[in-house]
Amino acid sequence: MQSNVITIVGVGLIGGSIGLAAKRRGVARRVRGLGRQQASLDRALWTGAIDEAHLDPATALAGANLVVFCTPVNQIAEQVLSFAPLCPPTALLTDAGSTKATIVECIEQKLPAAGPRFVGSHPLAGSEKRGPEFADAELFQGRWTVVTPTSRTPAPVVAQIIEFWTALGSRVKTMAPAEHDRALALTSHLPHLVAAALAGTLPASWHELTASGFRSTTRIAASDPGLWSAIFAHNRAPLLDALGQFENQLRQLRQAVEQRDEGAVRRLLAHAKEVRDALGS
Amino acid sequence: MQSNVITIVGVGLIGGSIGLAAKRRGVARRVRGLGRQQASLDRALWTGAIDEAHLDPATALAGANLVVFCTPVNQIAEQVLSFAPLCPPTALLTDAGSTKATIVECIEQKLPAAGPRFVGSHPLAGSEKRGPEFADAELFQGRWTVVTPTSRTPAPVVAQIIEFWTALGSRVKTMAPAEHDRALALTSHLPHLVAAALAGTLPASWHELTASGFRSTTRIAASDPGLWSAIFAHNRAPLLDALGQFENQLRQLRQAVEQRDEGAVRRLLAHAKEVRDALGS
Repeated sequence: MQSNVITIVGVGLIGGSIGLAAKRRGVARRVRGLGRQQASLDRALWTGAIDEAHLDPATALAGANLVVFCTPVNQIAEQVLSFAPLCPPTALLTDAGSTKATIVECIEQKLPAAGPRFVGSHPLAGSEKRGPEFADAELFQGRWTVVTPTSRTPAPVVAQIIEFWTALGSRVKTMAPAEHDRALALTSHLPHLVAAALAGTLPASWHELTASGFRSTTRIAASDPGLWSAIFAHNRAPLLDALGQFENQLRQLRQAVEQRDEGAVRRLLAHAKEVRDALGS
Repeated sequence: MQSNVITIVGVGLIGGSIGLAAKRRGVARRVRGLGRQQASLDRALWTGAIDEAHLDPATALAGANLVVFCTPVNQIAEQVLSFAPLCPPTALLTDAGSTKATIVECIEQKLPAAGPRFVGSHPLAGSEKRGPEFADAELFQGRWTVVTPTSRTPAPVVAQIIEFWTALGSRVKTMAPAEHDRALALTSHLPHLVAAALAGTLPASWHELTASGFRSTTRIAASDPGLWSAIFAHNRAPLLDALGQFENQLRQLRQAVEQRDEGAVRRLLAHAKEVRDALGS
């Protein structure tokens, strides 16, 4: 997909990486950034992630072929609905949010039929870091992006969005929004909750006694609390289901340790090792 | 501390790294490896971690100034007690085990007063990897090693063991064995249990939907099940206490999500971020 103009709404780590990748790979002639803070837009300009910085939605969106919403999940639907009338009716809209069902449902219910089309996306790439200064043109290379069409999404729209992420280096899967949310509750939102619970147990006096194990297991506990509390709220029921599965595993390990059943402990650890080894590094 | 001869019992990742560091830093004139499998010893010779490979304890230990036991925690006490009579009476014995109270108590009760002295050590360095091919001369550089003397350990023995780890590049803390075990239950053994529980929840069909968050949070679930089930068994009560603290944090997060209390979720995540940010990368 070759777009003349891509507008990125929210130029942080993800938005900035999309800009860098789109420019490096010739996916866009011109990348515009739309944001709320001039300082943040200036950093994105400085890193080369965007060619133009805009605080005004109307000028940022006029003539855009593709608009990618890279803002926190609790802002995406509202922004899509309020910005769509400012885009050309042929524009395609997508996002990079970590949850999909709430966002997609809200947009499908309210987006006018005559106007730009939206399909949800979620690139499975990121970091506990924030800001365009951490943007990386290769962030999507070899990673998966999930695109979440519904029965109401026109096939050519899906095809173009798949082509866009593929052009940035990503591999693409399509899933229904609710199916995406069930999977990501376990593969992404649950680890964030678990890492936070683990970091929360550490008293200050034992900081020096942590080694690489504690540090890697809690790395994502350094993520932004505001972004993640919004994600947990958006994906509440699937997250609680995933948490239930984790608590069940934890209970089995607790019982095996309590009952001094070293064979059972070893079997549970061996199963976990098999899963982890299969994921690679 | 300058030793003429160091014997390393069990030349895996930790034992091999001690050998490499001791040689590179001139801490030993000669490093001997004592093991049970010629193939493993050959790999240690090949990487340069040891100068001599021994299957026979008597020849490996004759004339040794320092013996470091780098075997699994459930073998250390027994080996120290059976190998001590083969060492010169002036030899110093230490270990690198992840648990201390069970090992130190067992050895103190049975080690003859006239003979080599033992003091427990635990270098807080390691990896989910195994084997001398992963040994690293800089593994201890800047890391902490905990040395665990008791009221019965002669002060000069403690001083010499501290000097040894310092010479390998490590920073050293002394702690009572039980205090070490309480701290490490939370900072090391608990993360291993949590990472295993998390890896254990992942169905095969969702492997591709894991990103760097799941991967770092479960990295240590790839550790050896036999080594870790032994560590859990050795440090059962402190581990169950630490697990209780983690379950309490998890319960608070669950309740906040269930009750749609986004402020409480944000506060818990913000506390976790504060802890994790303080640890550095």
